[in-house]
Amino acid sequence: MNAVEVIVKKKAGKKLSEEELKYMIEGFTSEGIPDYQMSAFLMAVCLKGLDEEETVAFTRIMKNSGDIADLSAIKGRKIDKHSTGGVGDKTTLILSPIAASCGVPIAKMSGRGLGFTGGTIDKLEAIPGFRTSIEEADFYRLVNENGISVIGQTAHIAPADKKIYALRDVTGTVDNLSLITSSIMSKKLASGADGIVLDVKCGKGAFMKSEEDAVRLAELMVKIGRADGKAMKALITDMNQPLGLAVGNSLEVREAIDVLKGRGPEDITEISVKLAGHMIHMGGKAESADEGIAMAEEALNSGAALEKFKEFAAGQGGDDRIVDDFSLLPLSGKTYELKADSSGFVEDLDAMMIGEASGLTGAGRQTKEDVIDHGAGILLVKKIGDRVEKGDVLCTIYSSDEDKLERAATVASHAYLIGSREVSPPELIRSVIE
Amino acid sequence: MNAVEVIVKKKAGKKLSEEELKYMIEGFTSEGIPDYQMSAFLMAVCLKGLDEEETVAFTRIMKNSGDIADLSAIKGRKIDKHSTGGVGDKTTLILSPIAASCGVPIAKMSGRGLGFTGGTIDKLEAIPGFRTSIEEADFYRLVNENGISVIGQTAHIAPADKKIYALRDVTGTVDNLSLITSSIMSKKLASGADGIVLDVKCGKGAFMKSEEDAVRLAELMVKIGRADGKAMKALITDMNQPLGLAVGNSLEVREAIDVLKGRGPEDITEISVKLAGHMIHMGGKAESADEGIAMAEEALNSGAALEKFKEFAAGQGGDDRIVDDFSLLPLSGKTYELKADSSGFVEDLDAMMIGEASGLTGAGRQTKEDVIDHGAGILLVKKIGDRVEKGDVLCTIYSSDEDKLERAATVASHAYLIGSREVSPPELIRSVIE
Repeated sequence: MNAVEVIVKKKAGKKLSEEELKYMIEGFTSEGIPDYQMSAFLMAVCLKGLDEEETVAFTRIMKNSGDIADLSAIKGRKIDKHSTGGVGDKTTLILSPIAASCGVPIAKMSGRGLGFTGGTIDKLEAIPGFRTSIEEADFYRLVNENGISVIGQTAHIAPADKKIYALRDVTGTVDNLSLITSSIMSKKLASGADGIVLDVKCGKGAFMKSEEDAVRLAELMVKIGRADGKAMKALITDMNQPLGLAVGNSLEVREAIDVLKGRGPEDITEISVKLAGHMIHMGGKAESADEGIAMAEEALNSGAALEKFKEFAAGQGGDDRIVDDFSLLPLSGKTYELKADSSGFVEDLDAMMIGEASGLTGAGRQTKEDVIDHGAGILLVKKIGDRVEKGDVLCTIYSSDEDKLERAATVASHAYLIGSREVSPPELIRSVIE
Repeated sequence: MNAVEVIVKKKAGKKLSEEELKYMIEGFTSEGIPDYQMSAFLMAVCLKGLDEEETVAFTRIMKNSGDIADLSAIKGRKIDKHSTGGVGDKTTLILSPIAASCGVPIAKMSGRGLGFTGGTIDKLEAIPGFRTSIEEADFYRLVNENGISVIGQTAHIAPADKKIYALRDVTGTVDNLSLITSSIMSKKLASGADGIVLDVKCGKGAFMKSEEDAVRLAELMVKIGRADGKAMKALITDMNQPLGLAVGNSLEVREAIDVLKGRGPEDITEISVKLAGHMIHMGGKAESADEGIAMAEEALNSGAALEKFKEFAAGQGGDDRIVDDFSLLPLSGKTYELKADSSGFVEDLDAMMIGEASGLTGAGRQTKEDVIDHGAGILLVKKIGDRVEKGDVLCTIYSSDEDKLERAATVASHAYLIGSREVSPPELIRSVIE
């Protein structure tokens, strides 16, 4: 076997064996196959595709390129959630304590964000004292004792994916369903859960712009996960406008606590409860998804989920007094109120542009080396469908730097479209892929 | 503009502008664009194609990446010939003196061979004293005085093609009509002739296996050449079995002289006369191709072409006595006679395998550093359609090394298929692309 033969075979649209895929992926990861051969191969894959069997193999090989988390020390059926990424998406902070309070063990490894907003780990680190890097034994102990722990992903999860993704990023080979799926799933499958509920976003602020593409991605991810023996389910959800009102790490922690107190924005509450409900059902704690959703709602109403959140934060060294005193959370000192320059209705609120504006405040990072400003971000006041009068505050922008504030404000102002048309907000949960 | 944008555009099947192609080709040649981006781009080109206009631009950019030969110091209409490459193809040695003797100035730059057999330059260097590397002024003087000179290609012709071809070779991106065409034509168009007659081979020993593919390649090459202002014509010719009987540098010089004496094998005589006839017509020395062909035949019969060959050889320092004394040409000392192990007809004689066997004798080079054994090669006795008796000599193999001889003999024995079916030799000249 040699690399050119495998490249030419895929170029001709032929199906590759697991051995051939292994030869390419392992060869590239170990630097036996140079990047110029891998990039030609990836382009051939983009244009000729991988079928389901090839995608399963591709994912498995990348998954097996690094460590596989062993969660067997944790009792019960571990359920994970994965979102394809969106602006204002703080669901992990909400659904994890909900599901845990309903008896589903949450042993989650999360990533840091690269891009507009921070990842779950960055959001948790906005809580004073919270440690996301803890010993394995402590991680297991916390899940067994409290039913919940969330830590940062180790570097040894799917290193082949890391290397291949870096090459795809600079060779125009990102946009392929099989490659996207195997990249996400290789990491998720290595993280050791028994089942995964996927939140696949569609719309302006999502990687998949159309609902149709999101459904195709979700269906493939579900198949790939099942081929690896995992319970799988996917929700297709809207990401045209940001989720909730808070965008930025500390602001999102505040909003998550509001939701857990039963007084958060409707959309983020709904999606968190729905996703948690499916997790509860998948974890064997409810007979049906609907029963799981009812249990999740009850966990919010009873205060059990909020209590679980406090246990969770305290367990990892975090200051749980933040729940009752938001002033303990960081908040950047400089603010700007973006005001409507005409009256009417918010016809559009572009999630991607709000994300970009949030990144400019200092809430995100462009390179791995950038330091996140946990107190920066955007608090939306008006969302799609809202009536506004000229001069109304549309959103408040937080930053610790006057220049950043100004640049963020300029971008945020372009995210809003005020018009005379009375529109409805986009439908939040589009469908469930069983 | 950036490389990923251009890659993604071609990946989406969109047409690229000359500026975009220039950005990629010049960027890669100057090392601003890394090989992994270029290889992804080339794969996208292979799978999404370049249209005629893009291919014209691609060729022009590669042509302009190096020197353009200026033949204006040479009087008259300079006509070049290019063959896509075959085994036993010594037509340049024959048609050049024919055309020159009919008044068409031949100012040719040729390449060395990489692969089974030597190139024209290697063949000429089998003539004792022959210099293929001479001063530009001498080259012009020789063409003006004798009407003919053939020299080695300088390194500065189309360097972009050289670099891109090296990458294509190791990334499975060789096989694309536009890339093949632009690679050949960028070099030919830079060599300064007013017109080019193409000999596009098809069959087992050619890059294009089918006549249909050869026609497509020829048509595109003719279009690309005309777009650059050149007179163009192409002959589609057979390369299932070797041309003539001689394969190997010195052996081919001998056969070329035999043809010029009117006693060479029929096939190589016919193709040389036909190609020369088209060149004579293209050079304005005949009213039609048929008249050109008649003139070419007359040049053979009258001895004018042979005389021109002597002038040509002597002009570049070669010993012109070889024409009357083949013993002055090198011939490797060790020989092996491959004999038929059954009686019947030669049903097949695989040009590719004879080429490979010839390479094993030492007549070709695998790497640029290999030294060619000018006296090595294969002299065929039997070709397709010939009747053979068991024990008849099929071919004689020449080498200066016993081991090489043996390995060459083994491969050559597989090239022959002796069967009971009386077959006709393949039709030599398939069609003319005007």
